[in-house]
Amino acid sequence: MKSALQRAVDKPLFKKIKHFLIGLPIATKLASGAKLPKRLALSTFSSDAISSVAYATEEIMIVLSKSSIAGIGFSALWLTAPISWAICGLVILVATSYYHTIHAYPNGGGSYLVAKENLGKYPGLIAGASLLIDYILTVSVSITAAVLALVSFMPYLQPYVTLLGIAFVAVLTVMNLRGTQNSSTFFAFPTYIFILFTAILIFEGLLKPSSMAPDIVQKTQDANWNMLSLFLVLRAFSTGCAALTGIEAIANGVSEFKEPRTSNASKTLILMAVILIGMFSMVSFLATKFHIAPMSLTNDGYQTVLSLIAEAVFGKTFFFYALQIATVGILFSAANTAYSDFPRLSSIMARDGYLPRVLSNIGDRLVFQNGIILLSSIATLIIIIYKGNTSSIVPLYAVGVFVSYTLSQLGMVVRFWNAHKQNTFLTINLIGGCVTGVVVTVTIITKFSVGVWVVPLFIAGLIYMFTKIRTHYIYQEKILKLTEEDTVPAIKKNTVLLLVPKINKGLLNAIAYSKATTKDCRAIHVVLDNNDLVQLKSSWGKYAQNIPLVILDSPYRSLIDPIIEYVDQILLEDPDMIVTVIVPQPVVKYPWQNLLHSNAALRLKVSLASRRNVVITNVRYFID
Amino acid sequence: MKSALQRAVDKPLFKKIKHFLIGLPIATKLASGAKLPKRLALSTFSSDAISSVAYATEEIMIVLSKSSIAGIGFSALWLTAPISWAICGLVILVATSYYHTIHAYPNGGGSYLVAKENLGKYPGLIAGASLLIDYILTVSVSITAAVLALVSFMPYLQPYVTLLGIAFVAVLTVMNLRGTQNSSTFFAFPTYIFILFTAILIFEGLLKPSSMAPDIVQKTQDANWNMLSLFLVLRAFSTGCAALTGIEAIANGVSEFKEPRTSNASKTLILMAVILIGMFSMVSFLATKFHIAPMSLTNDGYQTVLSLIAEAVFGKTFFFYALQIATVGILFSAANTAYSDFPRLSSIMARDGYLPRVLSNIGDRLVFQNGIILLSSIATLIIIIYKGNTSSIVPLYAVGVFVSYTLSQLGMVVRFWNAHKQNTFLTINLIGGCVTGVVVTVTIITKFSVGVWVVPLFIAGLIYMFTKIRTHYIYQEKILKLTEEDTVPAIKKNTVLLLVPKINKGLLNAIAYSKATTKDCRAIHVVLDNNDLVQLKSSWGKYAQNIPLVILDSPYRSLIDPIIEYVDQILLEDPDMIVTVIVPQPVVKYPWQNLLHSNAALRLKVSLASRRNVVITNVRYFID
Repeated sequence: MKSALQRAVDKPLFKKIKHFLIGLPIATKLASGAKLPKRLALSTFSSDAISSVAYATEEIMIVLSKSSIAGIGFSALWLTAPISWAICGLVILVATSYYHTIHAYPNGGGSYLVAKENLGKYPGLIAGASLLIDYILTVSVSITAAVLALVSFMPYLQPYVTLLGIAFVAVLTVMNLRGTQNSSTFFAFPTYIFILFTAILIFEGLLKPSSMAPDIVQKTQDANWNMLSLFLVLRAFSTGCAALTGIEAIANGVSEFKEPRTSNASKTLILMAVILIGMFSMVSFLATKFHIAPMSLTNDGYQTVLSLIAEAVFGKTFFFYALQIATVGILFSAANTAYSDFPRLSSIMARDGYLPRVLSNIGDRLVFQNGIILLSSIATLIIIIYKGNTSSIVPLYAVGVFVSYTLSQLGMVVRFWNAHKQNTFLTINLIGGCVTGVVVTVTIITKFSVGVWVVPLFIAGLIYMFTKIRTHYIYQEKILKLTEEDTVPAIKKNTVLLLVPKINKGLLNAIAYSKATTKDCRAIHVVLDNNDLVQLKSSWGKYAQNIPLVILDSPYRSLIDPIIEYVDQILLEDPDMIVTVIVPQPVVKYPWQNLLHSNAALRLKVSLASRRNVVITNVRYFID
Repeated sequence: MKSALQRAVDKPLFKKIKHFLIGLPIATKLASGAKLPKRLALSTFSSDAISSVAYATEEIMIVLSKSSIAGIGFSALWLTAPISWAICGLVILVATSYYHTIHAYPNGGGSYLVAKENLGKYPGLIAGASLLIDYILTVSVSITAAVLALVSFMPYLQPYVTLLGIAFVAVLTVMNLRGTQNSSTFFAFPTYIFILFTAILIFEGLLKPSSMAPDIVQKTQDANWNMLSLFLVLRAFSTGCAALTGIEAIANGVSEFKEPRTSNASKTLILMAVILIGMFSMVSFLATKFHIAPMSLTNDGYQTVLSLIAEAVFGKTFFFYALQIATVGILFSAANTAYSDFPRLSSIMARDGYLPRVLSNIGDRLVFQNGIILLSSIATLIIIIYKGNTSSIVPLYAVGVFVSYTLSQLGMVVRFWNAHKQNTFLTINLIGGCVTGVVVTVTIITKFSVGVWVVPLFIAGLIYMFTKIRTHYIYQEKILKLTEEDTVPAIKKNTVLLLVPKINKGLLNAIAYSKATTKDCRAIHVVLDNNDLVQLKSSWGKYAQNIPLVILDSPYRSLIDPIIEYVDQILLEDPDMIVTVIVPQPVVKYPWQNLLHSNAALRLKVSLASRRNVVITNVRYFID
């Protein structure tokens, strides 16, 4: 065995880069079972939920401000605060429901698990699909919102929002591929700092008199209050429901809490809900108090609503910049939560056979690296498609979350019912499930026209994929199962066909190898160029080692087709025959040089793919 | 051997689609040496040159109309006709020069050949690189111009210009992959129809009084005539030189003319030059006569200048539509010429070792299919980058053409000089070479700011690539050359390592094959999951066939690394040993199912790529 040092020197460039970026491999035995104290758990699990304060108010206002078409104009903006308070009511309901889930599933009850166990396979798959979509959107929304928070105080970065989003995702990817074992401490700071500075903002904002005239608010009283406006209010409400994303995080991660974990987790959940409600309702109130109107990212000088409030309250002082930086931080940290949730859920579903098994492979650094890479790829794609604009992505966001909430709560209802615990818990979960179900319906109806229809479509597509994948795995297992009668077959004859395109030094090893492998060995030359044939015929004798030379014509100038026909002929004559095709293959120094050689081995492999009893062997020779 | 019918039934889906689109293979012996009569040769070889009438005038006007920034305003448009006439002078010069080339190279003298033979390797490579770039741009420019001609009378297609361009290239690709043996008749029509209708346009246009007031023309007299304007005029001139592209086509293709070919070819060249000059100068004259101003593709209702002239002359009558359709036709046909030129030149350069050899492979249908696909890919990419806007691509166009003209003409000068033919031919070629050289310089200087600098950059890059490729081929030949001392090595020992991830039915064939291949056979199991190990240990004996089971620990959960270490250890102990790694590999029914299986064979192959004396063999088992 080589020493670690020797291996470090030997390793190829790709590995060197990989180890520089994500670190050296970590041995399995070093896997830590470290549990989180409440202090860290709050920041780790709540950053997703609390970070929505950074954009939820703005998204409500954007919907309301678009109502000018419906004849209401900017006046509808005063509805921002009431809508936010309604959403806070929903937060209380959902949090109460998850409070019970924590006690029922002390090992962590994700919606996938709860729905699968209590409602059956398909509800489980719907919950799984919804959650996977939701985690991906968490990354896209949080990262684009983080970029916009950055742009709000560094306006010269506005042209690069998409690029910055991609870069942020890349940083998260590398961090998570390194492993998150020690990262919860790192991610604890932004959450607390954000809470601190938002609290200061709310305190100052409530004290400070609104400097602008309240004429916009007054106009609203006379507004034309019709059906379209109700539709609009519902759409604003359902868009704002993005604030509820992430509430399930604590219930999912109970097992990572210090003992007594259910008690610790439920206390953390209550604390998180209180903070979220307080911050979200007050920020929305301040937005209306200071008559903030949302800006469009397509215009220069874009600022987020939160940064506009901060500017109105603090001016461009230290507190303004501190809040902006804290916002970037918590959103980055929120995106990071999806990097533990998505790989974990996809590895569970992969183990159940619903996703490719590679997603359950634990990589070098004790993380589900394939899940991380998959998550980053799709999130990046979404950022590119929507050009880094949070408002374009948020409408898609709430659907997945609320579908999984609904299923999770209905699952709890069934669980309580079966356990004959027909108490208030059951009632709360039933109400919660119905309300979130209504929210899903409202969301899909009111935001159908802004592209929300893709989410149910993707959920359906994913479920189709899950079942197709599982069917394949089950079928494969059945077909490959060994029975008592199965024995190792006897190989009667192995014919080796050595491909000889032209005679050169690289061929010598292949000749020797063919000769050593079997007695029935033939050299095959496909005639593409008569000069090569003449040269080959004249010199074959010297190196042939008694291997007969078979010359195949190729009327259509194909290298592959005559070989396939010849192989088929051999197999037709003797179906028990094994045919080994040996392809001498040049190995070049730099990858681009592969373009200069015809990759006959690969093409042969593809063409012979459907033939049984054919083995393809590459004997390589080196050009370096 | 199977019958053709049987093979047709057997063939996989990919081949069925391929044969439907591009037809069944054509046997080598059916290659036809059909020569073109003058009648067809004119239309085949001249469509590229004559089709530039469709856009060259417009490109000059676009440059001139941008002069409003320089204080001249639209008034500079009256310069369109004089600039066009100057370009016509250049046409006479270049055509005369090629007239001599035809007689000097009766087998077809492309600039690459002429420059290489008479000026040396690097001038030859510069000419080759310029021509390759030029052929690609011919496709991009002609196809986008064809789309714009279509949009000029079907305005509802304007939003889809890029998409239509891509579709047109796809159609050309399929047509050319089918083979162009019978296509010259097909492509003869558009050229003649275009000439006919343009002639009618010119005739009618000269007779019809210009209906608009000539105030725009008069204003010009007082215009501020300064250096910047001269710069602008030169830029307009060099942009208009796109009209000269394609003049070399006849000289390149002399060998395809009927005998007496030099006489036929030179007569065709003269005829083409006369038609081009007549049409181009008159169209430019009519544009100024009817006070046409070029339109921007970014606005709705775009029309080409030629269609505006046609509308001014004919109104929206039959003749208007006929001319538009003929324009689409000739431009399509012009793009098609590049589909014979590019693959031919790249195959010649590939045979010289400057491009990958695959470019000289003749495909199923007796065409250089790889060259065709390469050309289409790059041309499509350019259309996408420039969003299907001809005016964005044309500025790049003239450079390559004029570089190759200059080198070709200077090559002829050297040739005449060496042959001691110091006659007027030499003088004409010298003047031609100098003038086109000046045009190159002017083009690069005046259009530097509109991105022309990329062309010399690409030419330099291509030349670097050519020499790198050739160096590799020469090095490879040297290294692989057999000498008297080379003999087939004796293989002392071949150790077979059979990879056993878990025991199932798919493994049985692999066990049998390993056993049949050599005596020194070992089964290798890398421990990734203890359950698999327990199961394997308990059942291995039944199927082992006396093959010892080697169990490798994997502290870092890698399947590949322990195998590589084990192989390295064997090779270290006995450097003459050959190690064959046999990887059992599942073959699935549908390609997507490959995502569900870990492709260990491929990853092993990549990781073991640098080890000599290692052979990798896949023994497949089928899941279907």
